[in-house]
Amino acid sequence: MALQQLRNAHSDDQMQECIDNCLEAAQVCEWCADACAGEGEDMARCIRLCRDVADIASLHARFMARNSGYHGELGEICADLCEECAEECKQHDHDHCQACAEILPKCAESCREMAA
Amino acid sequence: MALQQLRNAHSDDQMQECIDNCLEAAQVCEWCADACAGEGEDMARCIRLCRDVADIASLHARFMARNSGYHGELGEICADLCEECAEECKQHDHDHCQACAEILPKCAESCREMAA
Amino acid sequence: MALQQLRNAHSDDQMQECIDNCLEAAQVCEWCADACAGEGEDMARCIRLCRDVADIASLHARFMARNSGYHGELGEICADLCEECAEECKQHDHDHCQACAEILPKCAESCREMAA
Amino acid sequence: MALQQLRNAHSDDQMQECIDNCLEAAQVCEWCADACAGEGEDMARCIRLCRDVADIASLHARFMARNSGYHGELGEICADLCEECAEECKQHDHDHCQACAEILPKCAESCREMAA
Repeated sequence: MALQQLRNAHSDDQMQECIDNCLEAAQVCEWCADACAGEGEDMARCIRLCRDVADIASLHARFMARNSGYHGELGEICADLCEECAEECKQHDHDHCQACAEILPKCAESCREMAA
Repeated sequence: MALQQLRNAHSDDQMQECIDNCLEAAQVCEWCADACAGEGEDMARCIRLCRDVADIASLHARFMARNSGYHGELGEICADLCEECAEECKQHDHDHCQACAEILPKCAESCREMAA
Repeated sequence: MALQQLRNAHSDDQMQECIDNCLEAAQVCEWCADACAGEGEDMARCIRLCRDVADIASLHARFMARNSGYHGELGEICADLCEECAEECKQHDHDHCQACAEILPKCAESCREMAA
Repeated sequence: MALQQLRNAHSDDQMQECIDNCLEAAQVCEWCADACAGEGEDMARCIRLCRDVADIASLHARFMARNSGYHGELGEICADLCEECAEECKQHDHDHCQACAEILPKCAESCREMAA
């Protein structure tokens, strides 16, 4: 990506991969939270966890993009949330839930590595 | 409020009132979006509008708090959203929906005044 | 506050006080980060910490407003950040820095109590 | 991208490209705002505009990701801000400012197309 080349002295490949994973997690969870709102009352826990992931993963990506000293602490919460949300989503057959269940564990893993 | 006294050369009473109204709107919509998720599928439109108000009103308050040159443009979106969300919420008897219907028009009005 | 009366079955006084403290912390840090940008290069650390507090305290208030299961974890980061930012701000004579130094410790304290 | 394949009935190529452009704009502006804080007092306007782009572009991407009815209105503000920020950034030789000046016009263009 052009951005990565322009800033390669500022960041590193591992952090950029984690940023990309967080932004993908935020997108899939915005989709899933929105779609679940129309699926009926059994989806309440899925909506709530997806909203939390969307907020935390977006902010975690921004903290990494500006090299904040607190990105590691936020990354641990992000990893916990992605794992809990993926567990919830994989119990539902909707395509947006299955997309969450597939995408979130990868985000959790790279957040744990960045926070370490 | 202590903060208001400390910064009285920086802001003004009308802007602080609009900030307070936006932050109250964001809170009531976080509550309503969360609670509606457990109320069944008819609440989908309410959840979606409340999520949008919570995001835009929060950011509008922050743009005013830092005197951003773009707070007026964001304020117009915030007013539109608050009005549409209040119209939706007043059709539902849940206490959180009635709280939205009561609080959001006041936020819309002060956002319009600030944007003018 | 009207909102508090409308939702008194949903939240409690301690959480509402913590929400108010976080939103006040976010406002004073938006102001301080904005103003420090015009104060010269020595203020870089202050700008960075104030930006982080503004983001985290705003999101922490929203997580509490919707009773997210992750508000405690976010509250611990918020308390750490408020304390570090207050330490930085109290070294500077600008009125916005002094306002931060006065307001943030109260936010840190209520975040620690909520997270406990 | 895997996410795009999983949700191809939900979104479309043009919107996904706009989401990607907004997220790239948000990242480069987080970097530039952070780095400018250490460059001295002449960078105040750059810091302020970059902060605003980072906030608005991030939220615009999220509104598109969840198909909010208000993404067009937010996209117009995003385009205005990207253009004003790029004008400011191109006057400065720092590599982060030059990266902004290169990346933001592309984001502005796709936001205008999405809002149309």
